[in-house]
Amino acid sequence: MSAKIRKSIGKIKGLLPTPTIRKAQRKPPGQAPGTVLHTGTQKLDKVLITVHDFTETHFESIPITEIEKSAPYLSDSSKTWIQVRGLHDIDTLKKVWDFFDLHPLIQEDIVSISQRPKVEPYGEVIFIVMRMIAAHNNGGEMFKSEQISFVLGSNFILSFQESDEPIFEPVLKRLETTGTRLRRLGVDYLAYALLDNVVDHYFSALDQIGESIESIEELVITNPKPEHLQNIHSMRRDLIYFRKSVWSLRDGINSLLRDETPLISNEVKVFLRDVYDHVVQVIDSIENQREMVYSLYDMYMSALSNRMNEVMKVLTIIATIFIPLTFIAGIYGMNFNPEASRWNMPELSWPWGYPAVMVLMLILGLLMVVYFKKKRWL
Amino acid sequence: MSAKIRKSIGKIKGLLPTPTIRKAQRKPPGQAPGTVLHTGTQKLDKVLITVHDFTETHFESIPITEIEKSAPYLSDSSKTWIQVRGLHDIDTLKKVWDFFDLHPLIQEDIVSISQRPKVEPYGEVIFIVMRMIAAHNNGGEMFKSEQISFVLGSNFILSFQESDEPIFEPVLKRLETTGTRLRRLGVDYLAYALLDNVVDHYFSALDQIGESIESIEELVITNPKPEHLQNIHSMRRDLIYFRKSVWSLRDGINSLLRDETPLISNEVKVFLRDVYDHVVQVIDSIENQREMVYSLYDMYMSALSNRMNEVMKVLTIIATIFIPLTFIAGIYGMNFNPEASRWNMPELSWPWGYPAVMVLMLILGLLMVVYFKKKRWL
Amino acid sequence: MSAKIRKSIGKIKGLLPTPTIRKAQRKPPGQAPGTVLHTGTQKLDKVLITVHDFTETHFESIPITEIEKSAPYLSDSSKTWIQVRGLHDIDTLKKVWDFFDLHPLIQEDIVSISQRPKVEPYGEVIFIVMRMIAAHNNGGEMFKSEQISFVLGSNFILSFQESDEPIFEPVLKRLETTGTRLRRLGVDYLAYALLDNVVDHYFSALDQIGESIESIEELVITNPKPEHLQNIHSMRRDLIYFRKSVWSLRDGINSLLRDETPLISNEVKVFLRDVYDHVVQVIDSIENQREMVYSLYDMYMSALSNRMNEVMKVLTIIATIFIPLTFIAGIYGMNFNPEASRWNMPELSWPWGYPAVMVLMLILGLLMVVYFKKKRWL
Amino acid sequence: MSAKIRKSIGKIKGLLPTPTIRKAQRKPPGQAPGTVLHTGTQKLDKVLITVHDFTETHFESIPITEIEKSAPYLSDSSKTWIQVRGLHDIDTLKKVWDFFDLHPLIQEDIVSISQRPKVEPYGEVIFIVMRMIAAHNNGGEMFKSEQISFVLGSNFILSFQESDEPIFEPVLKRLETTGTRLRRLGVDYLAYALLDNVVDHYFSALDQIGESIESIEELVITNPKPEHLQNIHSMRRDLIYFRKSVWSLRDGINSLLRDETPLISNEVKVFLRDVYDHVVQVIDSIENQREMVYSLYDMYMSALSNRMNEVMKVLTIIATIFIPLTFIAGIYGMNFNPEASRWNMPELSWPWGYPAVMVLMLILGLLMVVYFKKKRWL
Amino acid sequence: MSAKIRKSIGKIKGLLPTPTIRKAQRKPPGQAPGTVLHTGTQKLDKVLITVHDFTETHFESIPITEIEKSAPYLSDSSKTWIQVRGLHDIDTLKKVWDFFDLHPLIQEDIVSISQRPKVEPYGEVIFIVMRMIAAHNNGGEMFKSEQISFVLGSNFILSFQESDEPIFEPVLKRLETTGTRLRRLGVDYLAYALLDNVVDHYFSALDQIGESIESIEELVITNPKPEHLQNIHSMRRDLIYFRKSVWSLRDGINSLLRDETPLISNEVKVFLRDVYDHVVQVIDSIENQREMVYSLYDMYMSALSNRMNEVMKVLTIIATIFIPLTFIAGIYGMNFNPEASRWNMPELSWPWGYPAVMVLMLILGLLMVVYFKKKRWL
Repeated sequence: MSAKIRKSIGKIKGLLPTPTIRKAQRKPPGQAPGTVLHTGTQKLDKVLITVHDFTETHFESIPITEIEKSAPYLSDSSKTWIQVRGLHDIDTLKKVWDFFDLHPLIQEDIVSISQRPKVEPYGEVIFIVMRMIAAHNNGGEMFKSEQISFVLGSNFILSFQESDEPIFEPVLKRLETTGTRLRRLGVDYLAYALLDNVVDHYFSALDQIGESIESIEELVITNPKPEHLQNIHSMRRDLIYFRKSVWSLRDGINSLLRDETPLISNEVKVFLRDVYDHVVQVIDSIENQREMVYSLYDMYMSALSNRMNEVMKVLTIIATIFIPLTFIAGIYGMNFNPEASRWNMPELSWPWGYPAVMVLMLILGLLMVVYFKKKRWL
Repeated sequence: MSAKIRKSIGKIKGLLPTPTIRKAQRKPPGQAPGTVLHTGTQKLDKVLITVHDFTETHFESIPITEIEKSAPYLSDSSKTWIQVRGLHDIDTLKKVWDFFDLHPLIQEDIVSISQRPKVEPYGEVIFIVMRMIAAHNNGGEMFKSEQISFVLGSNFILSFQESDEPIFEPVLKRLETTGTRLRRLGVDYLAYALLDNVVDHYFSALDQIGESIESIEELVITNPKPEHLQNIHSMRRDLIYFRKSVWSLRDGINSLLRDETPLISNEVKVFLRDVYDHVVQVIDSIENQREMVYSLYDMYMSALSNRMNEVMKVLTIIATIFIPLTFIAGIYGMNFNPEASRWNMPELSWPWGYPAVMVLMLILGLLMVVYFKKKRWL
Repeated sequence: MSAKIRKSIGKIKGLLPTPTIRKAQRKPPGQAPGTVLHTGTQKLDKVLITVHDFTETHFESIPITEIEKSAPYLSDSSKTWIQVRGLHDIDTLKKVWDFFDLHPLIQEDIVSISQRPKVEPYGEVIFIVMRMIAAHNNGGEMFKSEQISFVLGSNFILSFQESDEPIFEPVLKRLETTGTRLRRLGVDYLAYALLDNVVDHYFSALDQIGESIESIEELVITNPKPEHLQNIHSMRRDLIYFRKSVWSLRDGINSLLRDETPLISNEVKVFLRDVYDHVVQVIDSIENQREMVYSLYDMYMSALSNRMNEVMKVLTIIATIFIPLTFIAGIYGMNFNPEASRWNMPELSWPWGYPAVMVLMLILGLLMVVYFKKKRWL
Repeated sequence: MSAKIRKSIGKIKGLLPTPTIRKAQRKPPGQAPGTVLHTGTQKLDKVLITVHDFTETHFESIPITEIEKSAPYLSDSSKTWIQVRGLHDIDTLKKVWDFFDLHPLIQEDIVSISQRPKVEPYGEVIFIVMRMIAAHNNGGEMFKSEQISFVLGSNFILSFQESDEPIFEPVLKRLETTGTRLRRLGVDYLAYALLDNVVDHYFSALDQIGESIESIEELVITNPKPEHLQNIHSMRRDLIYFRKSVWSLRDGINSLLRDETPLISNEVKVFLRDVYDHVVQVIDSIENQREMVYSLYDMYMSALSNRMNEVMKVLTIIATIFIPLTFIAGIYGMNFNPEASRWNMPELSWPWGYPAVMVLMLILGLLMVVYFKKKRWL
Repeated sequence: MSAKIRKSIGKIKGLLPTPTIRKAQRKPPGQAPGTVLHTGTQKLDKVLITVHDFTETHFESIPITEIEKSAPYLSDSSKTWIQVRGLHDIDTLKKVWDFFDLHPLIQEDIVSISQRPKVEPYGEVIFIVMRMIAAHNNGGEMFKSEQISFVLGSNFILSFQESDEPIFEPVLKRLETTGTRLRRLGVDYLAYALLDNVVDHYFSALDQIGESIESIEELVITNPKPEHLQNIHSMRRDLIYFRKSVWSLRDGINSLLRDETPLISNEVKVFLRDVYDHVVQVIDSIENQREMVYSLYDMYMSALSNRMNEVMKVLTIIATIFIPLTFIAGIYGMNFNPEASRWNMPELSWPWGYPAVMVLMLILGLLMVVYFKKKRWL
């Protein structure tokens, strides 16, 4: 099993991608609010725009290149989800934003990547920005993380994401199926489904961290090493970052639940309450995992102390047994002249002198061993 | 007594069953809300459904296999408790749910086992989900834990649990007795009684943990060992899990007390206030036990330091006494030629040389002992 | 003074009586709410009931054995305090409760000893339960602690306590004196006086703990020992228990102050505000003492480290001085044959060889001493 | 500079006067509320009463001995400040209280010295009690601390303090000056000025503690000693006491700001808001200083560890170099008879035996030094 | 890279300028409220006053020396920003304040430098005081920090700052450009822009600290040194100071958002909400960085322990191997007379005595090495 653990630890090292809060380029201070500047690090060559148009009986997915082409879908009575992937081509995005007449601050928040999650009403739309964090299923990195934002209108929803990761695939699958609640209810239910989809990913990340904690736990107990401390340190950092990414989402969703916005029906609010519950559960679990990591640190430190104790005991046992014996040997190695007087080391000439000293030493040594046994050092 | 303690510690190792939050299968992300998927690990071969029908004068328990058979009991003026045990056979459960027309989110929550406790009104019913944690009285594991959920209607109550543990036995006993408050009052009082029954079990778990803390306390003071640290660590984890399982129950019951629901009479609210008080008391005790465990950890760490100090003292005393004496013996073991000059080790030929050196060593050694006595190292 | 401290520490060991939360028998789970079962450990042979009847001009104390005998005192216009001591004879108590028609939950709370303090209105009476904790003035144990409960009606007050400790003596003394506020004002003022009396006892317990902290502080600074750690640990536990016993009293009294109950006049509310203030002060002091105890622990740990440092220094000084010297002596104890060549240990035959080596050793030793002086290790 | 620091540390030891909470005599439990008993330790021989009477154009300070003499000043349209210093002569104080008909609880609070600060309306007056803590400017003790209370009426203010410290001197100076806001506005502004005066003193105490922290910081970095730990411990205690003394003042002043009392005009409330801000700032700073002290403790502990490391390194270097060398010398000190066979210690008779061994030892020693250099232990 | 890190650490030492709370001169206690006394340490020779007057079509910047000259700009319909730099010349400032008739407490707060940030309405103006903290881009110090205050009227805004740092340059640039939102909207939007500008600087300071944390992290892992502890300690202090400087700004801006002041339009409130969000994000990040610093401290401490462990192991290995061997050599260095009896050290005369002993020693040594290998000490 050690191989599996070692591999899992190897993966831990990187853990979460470097928190964007520290690395993302920042706008220089004093920029006009609403200055649009992409600060992320994930690049797509071009912006992919897909229109998903659906009614209860009909569903269609159309990739488009110019946003104007979505106009007919928006004007009819169908519900429309416009999925935008890639945030590097500000010009194309600008056209999308202008087409929907989005507030400058929304524009700024969609592309500046270190946003705290928030849910904010802007007149006739609701703007939601959040960070997806998920376990990476295949090799290499341990987590994938990107910023997702939604603009919810009365009959349309816009979604923006940095990469073309198929994170919304399961929702699309359900959307394709006739008769599902997604098709029956309005775009507010779709918004709920997308939100819920992102929150569901948090649980996979939590499980990943949970497994790391367990692996390290086992290693710290059996054989604590300085590397484990670094693992603990980076888990601490990851959990801080994770919490930061989820924390204010709770307040955002809560405000959605309380607000009297016409954009979200009461029927959907019951479902949103469930998402809210899940977010609270994620935050709880993060806090619990942080406590587990503190506890791990404490275990590591006392494992170190135990180690030290063991080392000291070996040293003390050896030294305590042999130092007095060496002293005795030293005495009979002295060169006092026995011929100068009969008091000078007469033992040296006793017929049984040597065996007597050896026996004396043996007894002394055994006494020590008994003493250590009694002290439970052996 | 050591045997008893050792046994009790042996039991501690497992402590609480592995927190389901970490182990329970999760639904893959993006599932339709209301997707019913059992995530627990306890399996009953089939779903047991029992109808307990009662009025003030009459009581009857009927095991049924098809939920439709409960219809007559529900339609008359009697009060009905339908007890469902076993959550693996989704098909049978589905029939129960559909019979009572339960909201999809209720269905999802009943079978997904890592739910946080919650109390939520859904139109004409109130849904309550909570986790029972109790001390295991007979051998083996230390705790038993399963998810319990209730659906309270105007004249019926549904209860769902994973296993067929007889946790509601005492309530049933009282229900069988004519003239008890349970028979007199409505199903809201029965709901209270069932809730109270679950909360009462928390106290047995608290007592169990309290005993573990005391056992380890005694051991840490007398003879701290690395295993105790693991015990402390797992108690910490258990208490985190326990708190998580109880914490939000408080808010749930509180919202019941404040809400103007017709399902719960004012008379029963007085009793619910008492359950609320008990939950608060459980949370208080958990927090206090967590503090005790922190304190235990501190004791363990300083017991280690004390140990180290003791070991170091022994080493220092032995080394400090014998190293200088060995040095003196070393000097008189040098082979300078006394015949080369009268300055070369004349002591070797002094008639009293050897005894004088021995006395000198004795005095030196005694001085050391006196010094250590003064330092209180002995 | 050391003798006095040692005595005071001796007393500390037990500190508070074992927290009842852990020891008190619990009702088995699932008991009917209102099940009356005494869970305390203090036993009085029989229940003592005393009626204190008073008006502004008149005061009388009558011990009775049957509660019915109190009827005339209750029915007239005088104010009546019925003091019940001893909680083991449930039958007698039951008669008292039935006489006053108390709610089953009140009955349950009066005799179950691990109650959190609470203040609750039940229709026409107010029920108050709290724990008295006081310093023990004479020998043996350090604290006495028992549960006190009051039932306040419009013209009577019931008090229940486990033992026959004369804790209300001072209030009784004042009640005997004509013209005091106690005699002038209603039973609500008496209720205030009794509450205040209990809260006043907390301060004596606080002072006791404060003295223990100071004693141990002095000992930890001068001569830290493992026993002190146990003292610190049990003080921590006691403060946790103390806080638990007082904490929710604050909310209880606060709710009394805010509630529009006719049972408590505005004039008395001014006084209750004062009790509230005292309870807050007690909680503050407990928190501060907990911080002091944490600080004590830190001091203990660093005192240990200091000790270790000192021990290590002695070892290092002795070893560092004598090991090199012993090495030199060892060299000249080698048996190379000087006759084999003139390179073989010619020093042995130098006329000044021995004194030269001795001087060399002396210089080396002094250099070491100087080095340690410079390092401030001496 | 070390001398200055050492002096400043000398001063630190006592730091704040022993917290009265622990030392002040307490009333025995069960005393009638409103029992007047002075519990402070500062004694003035007699109570000094001074009447400061002022209008916009006129100012007069009259020391009086009988409170009745203040009647004419109170009855006219002027504003009057009656300053009472000394709290030991309860009889004289009683006359003052009765003259102003103060509530018994006010009387009790004025003289019981361990009061938490509070601001409480009593019918037609507002009662304010707080603790002044200030840096001592001249020698000896570091802080002075005494309880101050105010009773604010519609056209008068009473101030009580334990000692005759001239803490209100600056306010008096401004009061003597015609045309100041103090003279123009009512007694509520005077109350503000006095409050502000007391709060200003907190900042001097904060600065004092700040300086102590810096002194110890420097010492802990350069040369940590056990005394510093005691300093840290007593700073912790002082800050706990300081916080306790200021904390609830915030709520008190806040309630003044919100209350619709006619005693305080809106114009003065603007100024009170400023005092409120200062109190919050004091509390902030105390919290920050507590964190600094925690950080200091951490520094101390790791300075100790560093020390230990250094000591251990010296020991290890010396021992590791000389123990193997001594072993080699020991080998050639063995007395095997070379004549018994040619295998018995032939080295002893080699012409270059001795120099070879010496060179071998030298090389071994140098290798060790190189190894330690590589390990950066030198 | 080590050189770069070392440099970055060199810079860290000073980190933030000494917190003014500790160093700034304080007003002596008891000063009249509104006493104007500059307490900062940054000095400009004279006060620089610049009038920025603008409408949608027009922009003008006029440096003036007498505040009266700004009158024409204020009276017309244009919007006016009066920028005041330098706070040492109280006389000139006094003229400005009197010209705008500012409340004495505003005057006091503008020049007393240790203010907590606050936002307070004073009749017809809103007063905002905050502390700018920014990374220093060019060499030497790491941060620049100064107090900024704004007075916002209906058609003018006053800004005060200590130095002539061009912190508002970017806002001025945008103001010069025709058609920007700054020119279109009112002075409330300008106030927002200035606030936002200051808050933007916080992010640069955060990034700076983040980089320091990462540098030290790397150093602590590879080679922990006592200096790093000082770095950690001063980062802790800086973050405490930073938090203090930002913390109450949140409440201030929040009260602006909630207040029904006519000075701020709803359109601008949307933007203020964004600033609020940024301030919350700054506070979050500070808290996270503090946690990182705690974690760093923990890493440092355990790195120390690891070091100690390593040192102890070397000592123990050397001592444990050589002490027994030296003891054996000591035995055969004893001078028992083989001629006295055949029991006296016959080994010395055995033909293979010496090689046998050498082999014995070798085997013993190897056994030790094997033992340490098994214990993973090598």
